[in-house]
Amino acid sequence: MKVAFTSDNIAGASDSVFKAMMEAAQGDAMPYGNDDGTAQVTRMLSELFECEVDAFLVSTGTAANVLSISALTPPWGSVLCHSESHLLNDECTAPEFYTNGARFVGISGADAKMDPDQLKKLVSQKIGDVHSCQPSVVSLSQVTEVGSVYSLDEIRAISDVAKTAGLPVHMDGARFANALLALGCTPAEMTWKAGVDIVSFGATKNGVMAAEAIVVFKQSLENKGISSEQVAKELGYRRKRGGHLHSKMRLLSSQMIAYLTDDLWRTNATHANAMMALLQEGLKAVPGVKINTPAQANMLFCTLPLPMIDHLQAEGFGFYGGRWEEGVIRLVTSFRTPKEGVEAFIKSARQFATK
Amino acid sequence: MKVAFTSDNIAGASDSVFKAMMEAAQGDAMPYGNDDGTAQVTRMLSELFECEVDAFLVSTGTAANVLSISALTPPWGSVLCHSESHLLNDECTAPEFYTNGARFVGISGADAKMDPDQLKKLVSQKIGDVHSCQPSVVSLSQVTEVGSVYSLDEIRAISDVAKTAGLPVHMDGARFANALLALGCTPAEMTWKAGVDIVSFGATKNGVMAAEAIVVFKQSLENKGISSEQVAKELGYRRKRGGHLHSKMRLLSSQMIAYLTDDLWRTNATHANAMMALLQEGLKAVPGVKINTPAQANMLFCTLPLPMIDHLQAEGFGFYGGRWEEGVIRLVTSFRTPKEGVEAFIKSARQFATK
Amino acid sequence: MKVAFTSDNIAGASDSVFKAMMEAAQGDAMPYGNDDGTAQVTRMLSELFECEVDAFLVSTGTAANVLSISALTPPWGSVLCHSESHLLNDECTAPEFYTNGARFVGISGADAKMDPDQLKKLVSQKIGDVHSCQPSVVSLSQVTEVGSVYSLDEIRAISDVAKTAGLPVHMDGARFANALLALGCTPAEMTWKAGVDIVSFGATKNGVMAAEAIVVFKQSLENKGISSEQVAKELGYRRKRGGHLHSKMRLLSSQMIAYLTDDLWRTNATHANAMMALLQEGLKAVPGVKINTPAQANMLFCTLPLPMIDHLQAEGFGFYGGRWEEGVIRLVTSFRTPKEGVEAFIKSARQFATK
Amino acid sequence: MKVAFTSDNIAGASDSVFKAMMEAAQGDAMPYGNDDGTAQVTRMLSELFECEVDAFLVSTGTAANVLSISALTPPWGSVLCHSESHLLNDECTAPEFYTNGARFVGISGADAKMDPDQLKKLVSQKIGDVHSCQPSVVSLSQVTEVGSVYSLDEIRAISDVAKTAGLPVHMDGARFANALLALGCTPAEMTWKAGVDIVSFGATKNGVMAAEAIVVFKQSLENKGISSEQVAKELGYRRKRGGHLHSKMRLLSSQMIAYLTDDLWRTNATHANAMMALLQEGLKAVPGVKINTPAQANMLFCTLPLPMIDHLQAEGFGFYGGRWEEGVIRLVTSFRTPKEGVEAFIKSARQFATK
Repeated sequence: MKVAFTSDNIAGASDSVFKAMMEAAQGDAMPYGNDDGTAQVTRMLSELFECEVDAFLVSTGTAANVLSISALTPPWGSVLCHSESHLLNDECTAPEFYTNGARFVGISGADAKMDPDQLKKLVSQKIGDVHSCQPSVVSLSQVTEVGSVYSLDEIRAISDVAKTAGLPVHMDGARFANALLALGCTPAEMTWKAGVDIVSFGATKNGVMAAEAIVVFKQSLENKGISSEQVAKELGYRRKRGGHLHSKMRLLSSQMIAYLTDDLWRTNATHANAMMALLQEGLKAVPGVKINTPAQANMLFCTLPLPMIDHLQAEGFGFYGGRWEEGVIRLVTSFRTPKEGVEAFIKSARQFATK
Repeated sequence: MKVAFTSDNIAGASDSVFKAMMEAAQGDAMPYGNDDGTAQVTRMLSELFECEVDAFLVSTGTAANVLSISALTPPWGSVLCHSESHLLNDECTAPEFYTNGARFVGISGADAKMDPDQLKKLVSQKIGDVHSCQPSVVSLSQVTEVGSVYSLDEIRAISDVAKTAGLPVHMDGARFANALLALGCTPAEMTWKAGVDIVSFGATKNGVMAAEAIVVFKQSLENKGISSEQVAKELGYRRKRGGHLHSKMRLLSSQMIAYLTDDLWRTNATHANAMMALLQEGLKAVPGVKINTPAQANMLFCTLPLPMIDHLQAEGFGFYGGRWEEGVIRLVTSFRTPKEGVEAFIKSARQFATK
Repeated sequence: MKVAFTSDNIAGASDSVFKAMMEAAQGDAMPYGNDDGTAQVTRMLSELFECEVDAFLVSTGTAANVLSISALTPPWGSVLCHSESHLLNDECTAPEFYTNGARFVGISGADAKMDPDQLKKLVSQKIGDVHSCQPSVVSLSQVTEVGSVYSLDEIRAISDVAKTAGLPVHMDGARFANALLALGCTPAEMTWKAGVDIVSFGATKNGVMAAEAIVVFKQSLENKGISSEQVAKELGYRRKRGGHLHSKMRLLSSQMIAYLTDDLWRTNATHANAMMALLQEGLKAVPGVKINTPAQANMLFCTLPLPMIDHLQAEGFGFYGGRWEEGVIRLVTSFRTPKEGVEAFIKSARQFATK
Repeated sequence: MKVAFTSDNIAGASDSVFKAMMEAAQGDAMPYGNDDGTAQVTRMLSELFECEVDAFLVSTGTAANVLSISALTPPWGSVLCHSESHLLNDECTAPEFYTNGARFVGISGADAKMDPDQLKKLVSQKIGDVHSCQPSVVSLSQVTEVGSVYSLDEIRAISDVAKTAGLPVHMDGARFANALLALGCTPAEMTWKAGVDIVSFGATKNGVMAAEAIVVFKQSLENKGISSEQVAKELGYRRKRGGHLHSKMRLLSSQMIAYLTDDLWRTNATHANAMMALLQEGLKAVPGVKINTPAQANMLFCTLPLPMIDHLQAEGFGFYGGRWEEGVIRLVTSFRTPKEGVEAFIKSARQFATK
């Protein structure tokens, strides 16, 4: 049996998600987020995060990230994120577009996690100098782009720097659930309790077709002297002028409700992470395979001998390679990755290595 | 039985559409439009329009409109559209945002159709004068915002002015199918054969949850000396930086395929238009009701005595009022509007008028 | 003797202005507005306007206008100005560029003055509706584009509407001095005392080579709940990112100081207005000449028989024609227009008319 | 005698420059660049550069840089420049603003000169991938931000990479004349003959109050398949919508003419460079002073013992320090720096070091 580890966005949707979408396609509902489902989503997210939130549904992760940030930075601001972040590497110039031309500044740090010391240095440079962009937002990715996961202490180390500088903190949570399960903590602990003010709460990569929520922790923003009412107002207008206000919003709200019901998000991420653990464990034992960054969630970067890569691809396994250093490949598991597929991949690699 | 004529976006999706979505949620598919379905959509649209097209799927009509136009105007261009157009009245400042600050200039004209003479005057003003924005695109809405439909001759009168001025023509086809059936012509006749170069081909208002296609008539653009390859390239980057490139594109492609299969678009629009014809016919006979613009498709603006409006709303009928001149209400039928609902509305209005 | 009435920007600079520039070219001075002269300009403007102001020097009127407005509107705002205003007709798409895509909405009204009733209607439409741009700034031109001047009551009628709606008022004062002398009031009376919050204080058209001041009436803004500190901060960053922060700012400050010294601004505008009064008086008596809008300051639109226009141009007189209705020409006088030139023009017109 | 080495923008203007400005302030001239002087500037620059050029005058270096680049990159482009470049460090977010949100990517390299190998790697990454910004322009600073000067071979190494990738090359020539004299070559050799397509030809830092020319080498662009006519057209509109089209353009053209007359630019830069050579030579001999980057033109970064810095400032010498690593100061000479001042500075430093 062959399986693809190309990305978690190649998998479709969980059964309960498309059933919910199907039901949402029936009957009438008020458009543009005035449907009952959208209000329910906000309530469910408030419950999930154990605090009052504002929520804005959009259909892509790019939109969730750049809209979130655009509501927090002036056009002369600088947004501090890791130099390997999605924002700087995979969203074309959407970040500049939505912020009307803010600067996105890459911070280095091991395992694609920002180094708090370097961040500290940058947030205090040239403050008030009109010749320089002004630090305005800190954005971190959880899971990171190399598959590592910030510990709660690591998040706090970043958010403490931001707090001291009076800056809001955004979390790109495209793989929020996978990270959360890796840490074994609550959504609140991984976000506002650790100093995060706004999160792109991703669902699309974890069992949903297209639904992401911008979740605003109102009190967190207020604690930094930022009006959450103003942020919410801006997000409303910015979402519309970005063309991201769906008329049949129930398409998004129904998916998100299903995702949040009966802990589907948890079940799905648990499976994806478990498959990755199995995969990583198996690969470690294969001669010639080097684990680059230990996978904590559902994504792994490892280095394989080139002939082994050729062999695996010839066998029909799917994954990305040829984009990074020689021999580096990326493997991603999803809520739907079959255990047999993982085992087949390991077996095939092992056989090739030991033949 | 009570029914809502609030908008065609309050209805959900046709059965075949959500079945297609459900199937699309199974298995793996390459992301970002590299799925088989997306290629199929382009083929089906080429067939529908009887010419080679480029197609770009997005999930909102706002995105379809502003992306289309953004690929055709420089930031110092002016986009000429009717002063009552959606672009100028219902999309916040998305038009300015996506065009990086072009000017949207309202042209007047009866029944929300641009007056070709006024257009002619404007397209030749201050050409080459750096102090003035430069005419760059003509955009017309078919169905218009008041429910009228441009005849083929009327479209040609507009596009001839554009052609003489060397300008591309965009059609906002949020209700494309409803207009087409009103005219009883082919998609090709209503578009490129009448001088339209790019169309926002709407499906969301006619039986789909969220799917619109930007359809580029390649030869039409080339005939005006505009590189269709450049336009397609721009649309690719602009869609991504707008956050409108769906990872699980099959969600959109599956809907569009279902919409184009077995003439679903035609069946749905036929029903919606028929219900409007019935509704209009009935209302004409109600004392005190004034038809403002004769409905040719599925939308009607009419003026009712205020007590009649109150009565109908109290009876549970849904529609928009209070936004325009006193007594003006808007009625919209959809692919799903029940005949019994239309009859009940007429009956209720008539009873009130004659009691 | 032949003379040009083409525009007041064809004249150079007053003697004291270029003497001041010459002196400013000597020795060292701190760059970017940290020179003594720049601080002095702010003090002089505070004195002139009898209140505490923030001042930002730029070298073009376009920059002064669009920067002023950009600090007061969000990108989803609408700026209400006359449909014949410079903003809508002569600044390319600078307004949209600097505001990151706000909408500029034309208000009609006789003599290029906004009709307060129409303004009133527009400022209260669709408030809070994300589908619509949101009224954010009112901008009026004093002198207007057709040479008329708002009376103090007329300014107040506009600013009262703005105040009720909570909107700041900007004045495009490219010909500020000419308007002021027409009204015979104080700078304070024509601005903040009449409800104006920020003014583009023009000097370039009245005896200076290139210097305009954005003047912010701090208390006025505060009275509307707008933080003047925030506006000043934004103007600092926006000026820099617009490329309008001069390194050798003393070039601008020296001109503005000379302009404000010994009432040069008043002397120059008095002459320009007097020449226009003479010109208008003379033309009124010429058979066949029609005054379109009575000139109150230094600009006049009038209609002449076409052969008379040809004759005057053949005689060597300079002015703009052929841009408006048939036979309409524009005549502008400046601080340097010679009385003999005015008399020669009238004489030539009269001779042609009566030959 | 005390002297300031703060920057070359603290000096005023050469005598012939302000005399030219004074003359330009007399009489009438057509506005907006339609004066005779502006046409003359283009002719003089064509002669200076020994080829046909288009020239656009603006009043700040920021405007010259960002306008130049904005005409060459789409909003999804990436502009490759040194990570210590002015574009990335001293122009706020003007680069993003004018390019409507392109990405500015820092390239490393010794002495603030881009490393051609790193450039080579970056210009070929992710071409055609909509998820990534697309390399569109290469921009180098001559003199660099640390006072070094690219040799002709070094420029060619950069421009060859750009040429192979089909990218245009921009030169930030804020200190163009100083670099040219350091190399001892012709303007043509340092620009289009070495593969540069467009240059910000700076004059403000070298004896002029406020005048910079964007110089477009038409044939160079055409050779890369870029329409120079399109670039010129864009620059016209972009300058206007940036608010940088001066009405009394003769203020700028007169300065530029004076600058280009009788080799004033050469005389001024010769002096500035000579003073720096003297200064550097003297400082080298002072115990405790470390030259960081050998000055080739008129700017030097060196490291001094902190007490020596305090001493020199207490003595009244002006320069920037405290912005970089501990003890690093920047010294800049200008066309007007007095030899006695340089000698006094050296003497003071030496006395302190040896007391």
